[in-house]
Amino acid sequence: MEQQQIIFSNNLQDAIGAALQGLDYNKVVILTDVNARQFALPKVADLPVVAQSPLITIKSGDINKNIEAAIAVWKQLESAGATRRTIIINIGGGVVTDLGGFAASTFKRGIKFINVPTTLLGAVDASIGGKTGVNFNGLKNEIGVFNEACAVIISTIFFDTLPDCELLSGYAEMLKHGLLSDKQYLAALLNHDVIDGNREELLELLRRSVIIKRDIVAADPHEQGLRRALNLGHTVGHAFESLAMRRSKPVPHGYAVAWGLVVELVLSHIAYKFPAETLHSVAQFVKENYGTFTIGCDDYADILALMRHDKKSLRGEINCSLLADVGDLRLGSTMSDDDVTAALDIYRDMLQ
Amino acid sequence: MEQQQIIFSNNLQDAIGAALQGLDYNKVVILTDVNARQFALPKVADLPVVAQSPLITIKSGDINKNIEAAIAVWKQLESAGATRRTIIINIGGGVVTDLGGFAASTFKRGIKFINVPTTLLGAVDASIGGKTGVNFNGLKNEIGVFNEACAVIISTIFFDTLPDCELLSGYAEMLKHGLLSDKQYLAALLNHDVIDGNREELLELLRRSVIIKRDIVAADPHEQGLRRALNLGHTVGHAFESLAMRRSKPVPHGYAVAWGLVVELVLSHIAYKFPAETLHSVAQFVKENYGTFTIGCDDYADILALMRHDKKSLRGEINCSLLADVGDLRLGSTMSDDDVTAALDIYRDMLQ
Repeated sequence: MEQQQIIFSNNLQDAIGAALQGLDYNKVVILTDVNARQFALPKVADLPVVAQSPLITIKSGDINKNIEAAIAVWKQLESAGATRRTIIINIGGGVVTDLGGFAASTFKRGIKFINVPTTLLGAVDASIGGKTGVNFNGLKNEIGVFNEACAVIISTIFFDTLPDCELLSGYAEMLKHGLLSDKQYLAALLNHDVIDGNREELLELLRRSVIIKRDIVAADPHEQGLRRALNLGHTVGHAFESLAMRRSKPVPHGYAVAWGLVVELVLSHIAYKFPAETLHSVAQFVKENYGTFTIGCDDYADILALMRHDKKSLRGEINCSLLADVGDLRLGSTMSDDDVTAALDIYRDMLQ
Repeated sequence: MEQQQIIFSNNLQDAIGAALQGLDYNKVVILTDVNARQFALPKVADLPVVAQSPLITIKSGDINKNIEAAIAVWKQLESAGATRRTIIINIGGGVVTDLGGFAASTFKRGIKFINVPTTLLGAVDASIGGKTGVNFNGLKNEIGVFNEACAVIISTIFFDTLPDCELLSGYAEMLKHGLLSDKQYLAALLNHDVIDGNREELLELLRRSVIIKRDIVAADPHEQGLRRALNLGHTVGHAFESLAMRRSKPVPHGYAVAWGLVVELVLSHIAYKFPAETLHSVAQFVKENYGTFTIGCDDYADILALMRHDKKSLRGEINCSLLADVGDLRLGSTMSDDDVTAALDIYRDMLQ
């Protein structure tokens, strides 16, 4: 897969110009959603390419990331006179970049698209890596294709309009990237104040995070090996998310990932002697910023069952990507119910 | 793009075994349509892989090659327990391989599929080249992706159940491939009796035709240059098809291509001195096998307008891929209304 162009800039005029430069196109269409249109689009509404291009607006929310919305986008692309040489600029969070990427990748067998993520989670995760798609029949991202945006523009100018919980949600993925790469970057992340900190500093931290993800994706575009490293924190995190859903008290995805990271670092410590000191500093950061997800012994059986049914697990084993140290991966580690139980006990000691 | 495996064989047991060999999969699902289920499937129904796999049947006919049918296939894949490691075997004509290829390419961001074309047109054209998709909003193949089957099995065992007009329709694409390659192969095609001829001989002719197409596609998977050569006969052919539709007397696609080839060879003769002798032998073959599409001077304006609106034409010019000789391409030749008018006159002299 050709490496996609990733532009880090808070000057959107120049960034979009650079993204379009050298591309053969005859028209631009802007795709956004109701939320991004209200909060993010005003930041770029004056740019000629935005002001002068047709605008397609989809509904916000993961529940609206479905095939019906894709069909509506295809129809509006036709009404807008889109051809094979039209470029879609997706301006929004993960719903917009996932659905817009899918709509572009399938319209006339694929037209080019540029992602402009307006959330931290989108910037660090959803907008790069080529995963496009929609939910289908109650399953997340069930219909889609792997296809990279021809350019991604990473900027922090949109973040001031985000609620704190959304910033923190995205930041959990950055912590994950820190754990997957090196101690110095992880330390910088643990020292940064994502809510009130300097936005240029955040853009620099984002740059490092995005490059880490891009390099992992480039080595494994179709998620057959190394890319599973990006699942760190997610096996336990998804179980917590599902449990929260059953309790009718849903939690933000990134929060579940943050708590999941703590449990999986404990598992890493049990299985591979992941350093206790690093584990404790991450746990401390998570507790201070994300609070805790409260579980009791009664929940253990449910959590084990949910982990066993994770879509990345085969043959009903509990399977995680763990770490022997920061940046030292142990992909596809299988673990026993006893190990998970012990790790959940320690998680409760540390965070509750 | 990795070159796909193409297996030429009338032993389907061995062919499917060879196609599946070395693939990592946990389940096979068979996709077919109502027609193919009735006429073609009985030829392979006893093979264990077919008998023991879930079967999904879609409606026949290009009119049913739509997004609703793709949605129904996705749902049935889920009911059948399909995972990322499931392989779909598409058994049918172009509707089945186009739609089945699209459904597979988008299910869980893409699962593998094998094409077993049961029509000559499917074998020589639709099943190879990676064009998948569905019609949408009145436009042909408007939604889809470029994605090759991991294997295509070419066999003539299904052809005895095909109406003559379907055999001839597919054969027109083979004539096109002959014109794009070399005189010896073209001569062999003009000497073969596709209706009553030997099926092993046809399989050999098919092998040559499929390899020609595969090599052109491999050189230009996304249709940006050389692949336009495969459009030979189609600019005029599509115009004739549309005209027939307006007259409420639709003609088979391949017939329109056969007549279109004659007109475009005349244009090739006018523009590049394509040899008169070859032109006449092709025209003779077309007249004998396909009859003629009757046009009068009154139709010229319509035909010119339709050619100008061909989806491959830019800026309203009339643009064809022509030939200076058999195998000697002149891609993207622009021609005047006078040239086209002259060519239509000569076509009428030769065929009417």
